[in-house]
Amino acid sequence: MGKQAIGVVGLAVMGRNLALNIESRGHAVSVYNRSREKTDELIAEYPDRKLVPAFTLEEFVESLEKPRRILLMVKAGEGTDATINALKPLLDKGDILIDGGNTHFTDTIRRNQELAKAGLHFIGTGVSGGEEGALKGPSIMPGGQREAYDLVAPILTEIAAKAPDGEPCVAYMGPDGAGHFVKMVHNGIEYGDMQLIAESYAVLKQVVGLSNEELGKVYTEWNQGELDSYLIEITSKIFSKKDDETGKDLVDVILDRAAQKGTGKWTSQNALDLGAPLPLITEAVFARVLSSLKDQRVAASKVLEGPQAKPLGAERDAFIESVRRALYFSKVISYAQGFAQLRAASEEYKWDLDFGTIAKIFRAGCIIRARFLQKITDAYTKDKAIANLLLDPYFRDIAKNYQAALREVVVAAINAGVPVPAFASAVAYFDAYRSERLPANLVQAQRDFFGAHTFERTDKPGSFHANWS
Amino acid sequence: MGKQAIGVVGLAVMGRNLALNIESRGHAVSVYNRSREKTDELIAEYPDRKLVPAFTLEEFVESLEKPRRILLMVKAGEGTDATINALKPLLDKGDILIDGGNTHFTDTIRRNQELAKAGLHFIGTGVSGGEEGALKGPSIMPGGQREAYDLVAPILTEIAAKAPDGEPCVAYMGPDGAGHFVKMVHNGIEYGDMQLIAESYAVLKQVVGLSNEELGKVYTEWNQGELDSYLIEITSKIFSKKDDETGKDLVDVILDRAAQKGTGKWTSQNALDLGAPLPLITEAVFARVLSSLKDQRVAASKVLEGPQAKPLGAERDAFIESVRRALYFSKVISYAQGFAQLRAASEEYKWDLDFGTIAKIFRAGCIIRARFLQKITDAYTKDKAIANLLLDPYFRDIAKNYQAALREVVVAAINAGVPVPAFASAVAYFDAYRSERLPANLVQAQRDFFGAHTFERTDKPGSFHANWS
Repeated sequence: MGKQAIGVVGLAVMGRNLALNIESRGHAVSVYNRSREKTDELIAEYPDRKLVPAFTLEEFVESLEKPRRILLMVKAGEGTDATINALKPLLDKGDILIDGGNTHFTDTIRRNQELAKAGLHFIGTGVSGGEEGALKGPSIMPGGQREAYDLVAPILTEIAAKAPDGEPCVAYMGPDGAGHFVKMVHNGIEYGDMQLIAESYAVLKQVVGLSNEELGKVYTEWNQGELDSYLIEITSKIFSKKDDETGKDLVDVILDRAAQKGTGKWTSQNALDLGAPLPLITEAVFARVLSSLKDQRVAASKVLEGPQAKPLGAERDAFIESVRRALYFSKVISYAQGFAQLRAASEEYKWDLDFGTIAKIFRAGCIIRARFLQKITDAYTKDKAIANLLLDPYFRDIAKNYQAALREVVVAAINAGVPVPAFASAVAYFDAYRSERLPANLVQAQRDFFGAHTFERTDKPGSFHANWS
Repeated sequence: MGKQAIGVVGLAVMGRNLALNIESRGHAVSVYNRSREKTDELIAEYPDRKLVPAFTLEEFVESLEKPRRILLMVKAGEGTDATINALKPLLDKGDILIDGGNTHFTDTIRRNQELAKAGLHFIGTGVSGGEEGALKGPSIMPGGQREAYDLVAPILTEIAAKAPDGEPCVAYMGPDGAGHFVKMVHNGIEYGDMQLIAESYAVLKQVVGLSNEELGKVYTEWNQGELDSYLIEITSKIFSKKDDETGKDLVDVILDRAAQKGTGKWTSQNALDLGAPLPLITEAVFARVLSSLKDQRVAASKVLEGPQAKPLGAERDAFIESVRRALYFSKVISYAQGFAQLRAASEEYKWDLDFGTIAKIFRAGCIIRARFLQKITDAYTKDKAIANLLLDPYFRDIAKNYQAALREVVVAAINAGVPVPAFASAVAYFDAYRSERLPANLVQAQRDFFGAHTFERTDKPGSFHANWS
């Protein structure tokens, strides 16, 4: 019996689906799981597929062609370290470990360095698209040694999602933690997208007064235009789904307490470390947290009154179009912030990220796939060094033409007492970013007044301190 | 020669001023600095004060009464660890190290635990008030072993600032890192306060069109009322300060690029870890970061147009009063968030923080000292378990009476293209917190749709998954 070109360790749903995806492209795949039940189940369920079970790590490692390609799909954190430590003595120089888990990029940097000392390659890769993406074609964001990537690229390319133009959604991101970092920012952007859609829903429901049926139609229509994306598509479908038990619209039966797995939080915390302004996504993360304080909110709703929303009259349709524009422009602003964070990270960690390629591999397979990503790729193709996407001519035009709508929607929401933290943050960021002069001079004056922290001057370089008292 | 009751290690400006403060209360103080120049300078400058120099750590430790009380005022981080490691073999069980540096509370927790194993006490204390506070009376926030605090409390009480009612601004915060944590949140709140004042300045200048002279008068007047605070006081003075070189108003000469030392960032990052919504302070941190991108902003200001501010007419004075109310209510919201973070931390780290006492010791010595802190103490005195300050009757009344003004000011700023990220975030938080129903049900529907993450229902407990497709 020949040896396999690749093996998968960890057969929970993501691992087994990736194994099946690889097998479906004509590769026999070695599979191993710490407890043998999952392995037995997989083999029993797919007896005709070229899945080669191993029941010890020794057997598993022996079953692979050299250099070995081992995809780790285990629980991120201690699970990953434990698996690596168990595998390490069994491997040979030049073997390649690929961590496809939900790993913080700093762990990937550490593991890459540690394994490199033993002559082993380590690729940390983002895999986006959930269970279905893993099975049929995810968006894949690998980082690590370039030469190691080249040895796994053919298989990753085969299993990746294909964009509308046929291009596979996988590309080398950069050294060590670059892949997991890009995946983290992808997830942060996803938090922003979802919060913006949620706010558009709140405004359409509470300010315009749309029914679920009307909401479904609006999002279906929006999905035909600039907003065409997976998240808008599923949103349109959500509003027509009935609850099996009660017959009500399911969306109304679902509790308004949003959960999270922490990657949005990581993105915000890293932006704070990098000094890269990421207020919109951070508002989205806090909005989820605040939603989870349901009991407090219910209590507060009884004692903290707000304004009453005034019903809209003839301007209803025009206002709905304003909400669409507000959503699209806010989305542009969110991506401008996210890609500026990628740029800051690329400089800080010396990754030389290719922002246009990153937008390209988001076009299929992943949750944030959207028509508009092509505009980001186009912007970086035109000017690789552009500091912020808002400066690109296409996005400048969006800003010019849609900012009035965004202001109108935020103002209407504020006057109606409907919370729109992400929309409002988008306006503030836009106005601050385009401000030649901000009131930060006062902040610097205060800091120098109370702490002698010094200030810079507008008319010459240097640090200065005034005798304020 | 007798031994001293306390010694100070590290004679940079904070250390030397604290030593002078302690000495001024009638205590001889042992002083030590790694390089002897600073020690010599201090002794030469104050030959008549009871400062006892030591030039080796051995000599320094020998000069102290047992149990020894040693205040470390060294560079936070590696400097603190190096000093502790050098001192440790010279100390006896029961001796007390007090870290008064700008230390992250997780380092304090670690050091407290490590030193406890050797029978040594470790207090991490926030010291707020800058150089002048250190010399004349800072606000002091100590955390660590209670029995160790009791042994240093008399001296700390003597040197602390005194509130208007004569109470010293020092109190035991809680175990291990509690003191440095409270100081961190104090600083985060300071970031929020400063950003809110900066936004009020921007609105008064750009929407109302006030001159610096008029601004100085407005803040002077505001300082007579509810907003009475150190930061409003120095703001009022800043507008009348002339630049020595050009004769212009200094505030206009100061570059609008705000710097920071990282404690605001820590506060936001910790809030994200705790799952405590802290959007306003986080917007303030990002606003500083964005202000620092001056070159990008100047470039963007040339290509990204916004609306023109419309000059105000007869309603000018009423609008200025609205800005005052917006500022006060936003400040209330910011403190509600900050104190909710303290509550979350108290539960997470098992500190049993006394929120009313914390507000009390902020009343003098520190940067955020303000009349309104008494209202926070009052609220917690009435109801120690109150989940959020906005639910207290006094603050509820502020919300009721001032929210229209806050909405008016944010709307005016948005329509004028003036960025008010913290004001806008305050409105969004207030409206979200008082929302019985938020659009997070849609977020949960999306998550279940694309990732089978399950959702809760409004009508019964449990986790559910729908077959969406």
